[in-house]
Amino acid sequence: MRDDYPDRTLAGVVDTSRSPYARLRTVPLRAVRLGEGFWKPRRQANVAAGMPRFLRDMEEHGVVDNFRRAAGRRDVPWRQASYASESDLYKWLEAVGFVLQTQEASHLREAAEAIIEDLAAAQGPDGYLFLHTSLSSPEGYERFSQLDRSHELYCAGHLMRAGIAYYRATGEERLLQVGTRFADYLCTEFGPGKREVTDGHPEVEMALIELYRATGERRYLDLAGFFLSLPQSAGNLPPIAQRPALVGHAVRSGYICCGGADWYAETGDEAMLKNLRYLWQDLVRGKIYLTGGVGARHEGEAFGEPYELPNARAYAETCAAIAHAMWAWRMLLATGEAQYADTLETILYNAFLSGVSLSGDEYFYVNPLASNGGYRRVPWFGCNCCPPNIHRMLASLPGYFFTFSGDGVQLHLYDACKALLTLPERTAVRLDVRTRYPWEGSVEVVVTPAVAAEFTVSLRIPAWAEGALVQVNGDPAEAEAVPGTYFNLRRLWQAGDRIHLRLPLKPRLVESHPRVGENRCAVALQRGPLVYCFESTDNPTVSVPDLALAPPSGDTTGGFVAESQPDLLHGVTVLRGPGRAMCMLCAAGGETRLYRTWGCGPYPARYEQEVTAIPYYAWANRGDCTMRVWLPLTHESGGVAACPHHLSGEATA
Amino acid sequence: MRDDYPDRTLAGVVDTSRSPYARLRTVPLRAVRLGEGFWKPRRQANVAAGMPRFLRDMEEHGVVDNFRRAAGRRDVPWRQASYASESDLYKWLEAVGFVLQTQEASHLREAAEAIIEDLAAAQGPDGYLFLHTSLSSPEGYERFSQLDRSHELYCAGHLMRAGIAYYRATGEERLLQVGTRFADYLCTEFGPGKREVTDGHPEVEMALIELYRATGERRYLDLAGFFLSLPQSAGNLPPIAQRPALVGHAVRSGYICCGGADWYAETGDEAMLKNLRYLWQDLVRGKIYLTGGVGARHEGEAFGEPYELPNARAYAETCAAIAHAMWAWRMLLATGEAQYADTLETILYNAFLSGVSLSGDEYFYVNPLASNGGYRRVPWFGCNCCPPNIHRMLASLPGYFFTFSGDGVQLHLYDACKALLTLPERTAVRLDVRTRYPWEGSVEVVVTPAVAAEFTVSLRIPAWAEGALVQVNGDPAEAEAVPGTYFNLRRLWQAGDRIHLRLPLKPRLVESHPRVGENRCAVALQRGPLVYCFESTDNPTVSVPDLALAPPSGDTTGGFVAESQPDLLHGVTVLRGPGRAMCMLCAAGGETRLYRTWGCGPYPARYEQEVTAIPYYAWANRGDCTMRVWLPLTHESGGVAACPHHLSGEATA
Repeated sequence: MRDDYPDRTLAGVVDTSRSPYARLRTVPLRAVRLGEGFWKPRRQANVAAGMPRFLRDMEEHGVVDNFRRAAGRRDVPWRQASYASESDLYKWLEAVGFVLQTQEASHLREAAEAIIEDLAAAQGPDGYLFLHTSLSSPEGYERFSQLDRSHELYCAGHLMRAGIAYYRATGEERLLQVGTRFADYLCTEFGPGKREVTDGHPEVEMALIELYRATGERRYLDLAGFFLSLPQSAGNLPPIAQRPALVGHAVRSGYICCGGADWYAETGDEAMLKNLRYLWQDLVRGKIYLTGGVGARHEGEAFGEPYELPNARAYAETCAAIAHAMWAWRMLLATGEAQYADTLETILYNAFLSGVSLSGDEYFYVNPLASNGGYRRVPWFGCNCCPPNIHRMLASLPGYFFTFSGDGVQLHLYDACKALLTLPERTAVRLDVRTRYPWEGSVEVVVTPAVAAEFTVSLRIPAWAEGALVQVNGDPAEAEAVPGTYFNLRRLWQAGDRIHLRLPLKPRLVESHPRVGENRCAVALQRGPLVYCFESTDNPTVSVPDLALAPPSGDTTGGFVAESQPDLLHGVTVLRGPGRAMCMLCAAGGETRLYRTWGCGPYPARYEQEVTAIPYYAWANRGDCTMRVWLPLTHESGGVAACPHHLSGEATA
Repeated sequence: MRDDYPDRTLAGVVDTSRSPYARLRTVPLRAVRLGEGFWKPRRQANVAAGMPRFLRDMEEHGVVDNFRRAAGRRDVPWRQASYASESDLYKWLEAVGFVLQTQEASHLREAAEAIIEDLAAAQGPDGYLFLHTSLSSPEGYERFSQLDRSHELYCAGHLMRAGIAYYRATGEERLLQVGTRFADYLCTEFGPGKREVTDGHPEVEMALIELYRATGERRYLDLAGFFLSLPQSAGNLPPIAQRPALVGHAVRSGYICCGGADWYAETGDEAMLKNLRYLWQDLVRGKIYLTGGVGARHEGEAFGEPYELPNARAYAETCAAIAHAMWAWRMLLATGEAQYADTLETILYNAFLSGVSLSGDEYFYVNPLASNGGYRRVPWFGCNCCPPNIHRMLASLPGYFFTFSGDGVQLHLYDACKALLTLPERTAVRLDVRTRYPWEGSVEVVVTPAVAAEFTVSLRIPAWAEGALVQVNGDPAEAEAVPGTYFNLRRLWQAGDRIHLRLPLKPRLVESHPRVGENRCAVALQRGPLVYCFESTDNPTVSVPDLALAPPSGDTTGGFVAESQPDLLHGVTVLRGPGRAMCMLCAAGGETRLYRTWGCGPYPARYEQEVTAIPYYAWANRGDCTMRVWLPLTHESGGVAACPHHLSGEATA
């Protein structure tokens, strides 16, 4: 190991502390301690329920035994599993690493350490470790012979990252060494004049760069750069620095963009950054759901054309949400621009969080924005990429709240927490964030430098936060808080200085670009970073698939008001307001013609009815339901007070 | 062969002449001679261009050589091909059979006869004939061991039907014998107490029933009934008589429904008919495109949920259109109800016909209702089911125009033709249909019985034909012509009696059920049976994906008028009318936000502009284009005469 081996305890979720071209530096997860806010119970459920259950399920399905068998440690038959099953275990181990960077978790640590021994024993003498080749599996093939589908380098990358996270947490190098031995072997096998091909599923690129950051070994960065320079071996896609649009498999796309952004942070490759910016625009202008979900097509788990964003048939894989949160984070680190943090927040509170049940141990693979019933989260999939990806994202979440730069500290995500940060020139500062965000818009930050010091505290003003206000020690700040930017407070900070940010949380109706076919003449409801949805559970007497809104012109709240419900769905704020509803009897007895001459009379009339919306992330936690995020606007007159079935008592009987 | 072997020259496209439970009897193809109408040039292109080219391509790709190799007639290597490639050849041979039922075509007949010899020589001594098993193919497997995906019985069914059509055309039994030998072998292998499994891809059921009709051999009907009683081996679908909804692969679904309807016609199985009626309602109430296209999902080539009908992402496979036309035809034969003929006509003029180029030799597999560019028909696919399906449908088309019953004769589809029909009790009657339908609404039918005779002539009044008028010998008929029914004219017909049907062909705007997400607040344009579309080729200065309509309230024509264009697209009637357009410069420089607060201002304004629609079937015949069937309705005020780019001359430069 090199002399200048970086201090593991200072590394963040990724470590940009020495990245020459990163504008922002990450803070260690261990520096941030969550308070009684939004994320803490979700991280607790992850550690107490989700991760243990998934480990039990992996054991039951033979995922770990396959390693023990390869190591000669257990005489069991080979258990058929998906190509990527090894990466499921690696991601789970990475999640353990992130957990242990912030807390004790002996039940996870003990299991992990035994498994790490199995992995180390299964590794070949040359460093190769992948079970689906002919070495280990009866259905196997020659190593590196089927990279377009084998996921060999993908799994290798996840192995490296597991080793890094575990080492940064514990200082134990065993798993990191397994990863570096594999990486060293890859360096001998791949590169110019050697194997000039890469994996069909990116991942190894960002893993190699993080391994370079963790070890200081330049060859890992070089190999990552080599892989990035190649076309993707599945789907015949150009290298990411030249790709003209976001196409193909959404998770693969997100991961290679992460690798590209990491590459920029280390090398300053302007052509790479330029194309990543261009691809980002392709994402946010036409290929991302309101929820932050990514990937419109079930077929190929792929991006669609611009504006192709079906709701009930959204794919929006949980892993794609995570991949694009990770990309957003890396773009933020590279550029310091608030637009990336805005998207990061959107994804985390909506498309990502909907991927896991409130109980923390059941998962969605697909995250549609409308359902006619039949969706439920499950603990286990045939292809299991999403659950451990959720585990590691939840575990690493405190690492996304803050960054620092030469200038000072930046606050990106607001949640109740205490952070003890060491700014440049060794300025130690404690930040005490007090908030009930996203339920309430008040964010108080108590700034306590060890000694009075001048630096900038930058507060992200979310793009939706029109009318945000900032006070320092009770005095309104002079500058205007501009949505979609950082509000910079530079001063000589004294112990106990208080910042008060007030974010406006009025419900708001949003519309989408008219080229989004399914959202034409429709609106969705948001409050703060949360997208809301209408679930039949809360609206039992009406037909949710026929629900509409008729908002008063000019009232962008649509008449909806927030109401805190501490006992509902582990505590949420619901939105209640006037809908235009059709009762189930009206809907069932209504128009049956699929097509008819235009303007030949109304469909069954909708009547005014108070309706209730819940946060999208919480849907499908109370049994089967129908659900809609986008509701049509209706111009029907409001004269109908109730349908005939209601008036007769039939509809509520 | 049995004594009561039916007269081959009297058989129709399917032969219901002895089917006890069919309400309607088919007429022989050879009884109908097309005049200078809509379909004749398309059938000519099929025979002169499409079928010869496809045969050349099959030879080039080794499809026929695989048989010659199996027969020991040619020493060539096995050519890898799709599982269903043998059925491509069989469908092509069936098409030759249909062609030869109506005309000479020595170039096809000579080729077919040589191929038939090859097939006969390739058949095993037990009657089995399928090349993908271990007998013939290096990648092969045990026969009948992989029926969920092998297409063995599917191919067998197509072989039988080819033999039937060729025999009915020529009287030559060689290919029919290959089919019956295979069918006899299947009778020994499959059935109660024998192999109790069926093919993942239905087809053999209707083929066996047609073989029963052609030969009088009851065992074929029994085996069909046995297969129909089983769950479908792919997708775990219940038998069609118990299936609760149309689900899964749309072509497979259509074919099994055909088998079920044929079964009803022979057996009177009321439970079967009842469920087919129920499934038909599932189709027409929520799972069929305006064009008659079927199958919403690319994934699995499958039905979606009710109302799941995306436009640009429609799958609408050409084979699914054909399968559902065939089902509609069989439901019509079983019940005599006009609703089935309406759907048959919709499919034929739109979703089916769009599957083939005007040149007759290039094909669509997928038939979307919107395109942002990049679609073109091609002569050859990796999976080639659609082209020869188009060949046989075009070849057999005259068999769909008329039926007869104990009562008289029914006219279902209107095209210029002469028909010489033999009604019950040996009444010979000539019908001379003079019309330019669907371009013009006038249909004249000269009825010439050999001797004066009383019978009923039933004219289909299409469901869209509000205000149709009927005259006989210049006198208005007394009854009202009710759309969606048959207009029955019973009288003592004398030679030269003239019926004149006038179908109203005003352009009409149609809307779809509001649950169809992508069509909300949108309309499509139809005229007669034709669905129209807006293609960029005819509207070069505007952005077709942003095109809208603002029809005057109450004017269901939308202000569109018909204009005959004999030199355009082999002769079409276009529709011209007022659109609300955005020029390409406005569209490109317009709103880039994907989501924004509701009601915060207009997107780039659209201006009034005359736009031109062409029949949907003719789209994509003039190079790359964008296209829309459904256009949004806009409420923008009409004050903008032209966009700034137009006023400055920039947009048209």
